[in-house]
Amino acid sequence: MANLIHRRRFTIEWGHCDPAGIVFNSNFFVFFDSSTWDMFEKVLGVNRAEIGKTYDMVGFPLVDVRGRFLKPAKFGELVEVESEVSEFRRSSFDVQHKLTVRGEAAAEGTETRVWAGADPDNPGKIKAKPIPQAVIDAFAGR
Amino acid sequence: MANLIHRRRFTIEWGHCDPAGIVFNSNFFVFFDSSTWDMFEKVLGVNRAEIGKTYDMVGFPLVDVRGRFLKPAKFGELVEVESEVSEFRRSSFDVQHKLTVRGEAAAEGTETRVWAGADPDNPGKIKAKPIPQAVIDAFAGR
Amino acid sequence: MANLIHRRRFTIEWGHCDPAGIVFNSNFFVFFDSSTWDMFEKVLGVNRAEIGKTYDMVGFPLVDVRGRFLKPAKFGELVEVESEVSEFRRSSFDVQHKLTVRGEAAAEGTETRVWAGADPDNPGKIKAKPIPQAVIDAFAGR
Amino acid sequence: MANLIHRRRFTIEWGHCDPAGIVFNSNFFVFFDSSTWDMFEKVLGVNRAEIGKTYDMVGFPLVDVRGRFLKPAKFGELVEVESEVSEFRRSSFDVQHKLTVRGEAAAEGTETRVWAGADPDNPGKIKAKPIPQAVIDAFAGR
Repeated sequence: MANLIHRRRFTIEWGHCDPAGIVFNSNFFVFFDSSTWDMFEKVLGVNRAEIGKTYDMVGFPLVDVRGRFLKPAKFGELVEVESEVSEFRRSSFDVQHKLTVRGEAAAEGTETRVWAGADPDNPGKIKAKPIPQAVIDAFAGR
Repeated sequence: MANLIHRRRFTIEWGHCDPAGIVFNSNFFVFFDSSTWDMFEKVLGVNRAEIGKTYDMVGFPLVDVRGRFLKPAKFGELVEVESEVSEFRRSSFDVQHKLTVRGEAAAEGTETRVWAGADPDNPGKIKAKPIPQAVIDAFAGR
Repeated sequence: MANLIHRRRFTIEWGHCDPAGIVFNSNFFVFFDSSTWDMFEKVLGVNRAEIGKTYDMVGFPLVDVRGRFLKPAKFGELVEVESEVSEFRRSSFDVQHKLTVRGEAAAEGTETRVWAGADPDNPGKIKAKPIPQAVIDAFAGR
Repeated sequence: MANLIHRRRFTIEWGHCDPAGIVFNSNFFVFFDSSTWDMFEKVLGVNRAEIGKTYDMVGFPLVDVRGRFLKPAKFGELVEVESEVSEFRRSSFDVQHKLTVRGEAAAEGTETRVWAGADPDNPGKIKAKPIPQAVIDAFAGR
């Protein structure tokens, strides 16, 4: 079955760009982070700020991320970010992001995130938790 | 005559917020800057990256800005920014921004910007220029 | 008596700058915020992350801030930020910042902050609290 | 021969951190970018803003970057970033970054960058250029 694809469009702002007039590299990771949150909000039908409480977790911290920058994205350009969860594992998952400008791939990102809850043995610390079946089902369109 | 009001809505992202869980103060100025560019793009009917070339200028650098923070804006909240040019002077202008959360004022901003062109006497430097009448007319709905 | 002056030097980075090759306006407020925290850390002799616990407060949120931008600060330039608390009131205070490049004023900022603690009547909310005399004394060099 | 190691220390600021009280992921790439520029400035003995003019190039845009986040870095912590060029190729190079908190690895980054000059055949475009031997020699301590 094809994965659910999340799409988000926005304009490259002056403040996203560096002296070369193109998106400063770290901002692509800002874009990818927002897309991941937005995808979970839309797929789960829960405001992003309520996901933690709803699923008894504290967030999905990034443990590994990679970006490939193929073409610059410039001030004023309308871009689209396409995102999908490419794999759910027991307590971690991967998200693939593709940013396009006028249909051409400009940047790609791969995030590995952990489903994290409070660690019952270490107050103030977090710990990987199994991803709820309801979350996996929602992404599978079930 | 009432001023033209520009409105823009977006969600407060994880990356906008600080350890208090609310928008980090400098990000309000990022929001205001984007609203000013977006307002000029919409009112002038020119992509924000083409405004300089269209009006033979190089930008409208900020010379003075003030922000008042009335209530926190939190992760996941949908906010609206209302913006208007409150005054056009010969070569500078003021923009007022009001950010609301669920209809309540959360932050206000006042920007003073200069209409800047290349300085013919100093290569690489900029200089205030008169704001074109066509720009003022567009904002007046003429 | 003269106020205590806090100084901090750093280099303008690529990621601080916009397509005009100069510091993007909101980053001046990032610089000012860091200077305020650093000044409190140095004057109180308490790591910035421990100030809350040490003084039974939760932070000093900004309620009003103003920036004046006099000259651009460019990529690669060494800048100095001079900061001082210009006034302590019962539960709020003002900080003045001056950013210079090669001794010339480039940007000025004025912050008004509130000394905030947990609101005993509203869990999860904050409330202005009197600034401890020990804090005021430390800034007076007593 | 061992590679030249560049070290830089700084404090994690309030504005670097997210609602979890730890560095927001994209900011690690801001830190790595600054370390790369600072390393080139120190090794070449040329202000970072003059590197382009000195070597007839326009910058070293990132084409691929990876970050691994091992432990959180928190507000107020002093961190150290250790950086080195792990490989110079004809017109691209790799930089390895390691961020430690109290001596423990918290984040690692690997950047692949291209040595770019103006493309003589496409005004306004850039093109990979051979890395000057003088640059490679400087990193080899010759």
